[in-house]
Amino acid sequence: MSGASKPSFMALALAEAERAGERGEVPVGAVVVESGTGSVLASAGNRVEELRDPTAHAEMLVLRAAAERQGAPRLTDCDLYVSLEPCAMCAAAISFARVRRLYFGASDPKGGGVEHGPRIFTQPTCHHRPEVYGGIDDARSPLINLSPIGYCHRPSCTARARPGDP
Amino acid sequence: MSGASKPSFMALALAEAERAGERGEVPVGAVVVESGTGSVLASAGNRVEELRDPTAHAEMLVLRAAAERQGAPRLTDCDLYVSLEPCAMCAAAISFARVRRLYFGASDPKGGGVEHGPRIFTQPTCHHRPEVYGGIDDARSPLINLSPIGYCHRPSCTARARPGDP
Repeated sequence: MSGASKPSFMALALAEAERAGERGEVPVGAVVVESGTGSVLASAGNRVEELRDPTAHAEMLVLRAAAERQGAPRLTDCDLYVSLEPCAMCAAAISFARVRRLYFGASDPKGGGVEHGPRIFTQPTCHHRPEVYGGIDDARSPLINLSPIGYCHRPSCTARARPGDP
Repeated sequence: MSGASKPSFMALALAEAERAGERGEVPVGAVVVESGTGSVLASAGNRVEELRDPTAHAEMLVLRAAAERQGAPRLTDCDLYVSLEPCAMCAAAISFARVRRLYFGASDPKGGGVEHGPRIFTQPTCHHRPEVYGGIDDARSPLINLSPIGYCHRPSCTARARPGDP
């Protein structure tokens, strides 16, 4: 596929986010890419409600799927693209999986765990820190035009708004 | 089952930890109990290596299994027993699942996320905080006699010791 026609990996994550929103999930999408080949190993949107699984954030689903595909619980040669700043759970999982680079879209002051809250990768107890690139295509995030207080994609947050909410 | 013969839920978690160690996993075990009935909804030990899944900590496995059994991603009437202080990933998942009470055994200064490191439940961005009871049966934890610098059950930690290591 040529560079001109190749969709960006963040565009794929954003498309997954849109589809998650259409399914009634919090609209977050994620993609794992093998950095050496540029191959997409896994892509997914949130499926917390559909799977009735409190851990089924998009990032967790793609990390698990990519590890299964690789046949190993470490993804040292892989990059992760997410439409929203990962929460603490997903940030810690990213560290455990030894992801090489994390690219994310919109910041999440209310529920994020990378630039906000516990800032997982800055903790002395964090033993692997990916390279982090935030604000990628953030103007296109399906969350960006929601509540001015920010959008929480945590299932435990009762203050969250869904797409289409006033 | 009478109170006299009923094994404690922490004893079940410790037994799962022992079995995990025998499988070559980091020896951590967990149990989810429905508080109203005292029924065990799920029990598991770590399966990171076996499942090749960086997120397959004991706590994550039992939260997912209990939610599937309950048919809902929230476990508001449930308590979680873990043989070791949960890491940041598991602590955040416990919050998302709205677990009522967390009981854990040994503290984990190197990798814990409840009393150490990011102290997930104290973060202003944490929207549900379980009641937390630490140090339960901690002298019986299979980790307690390991390295004096503590035992890390994070798959990303290269400094960890396994049972039987010097």
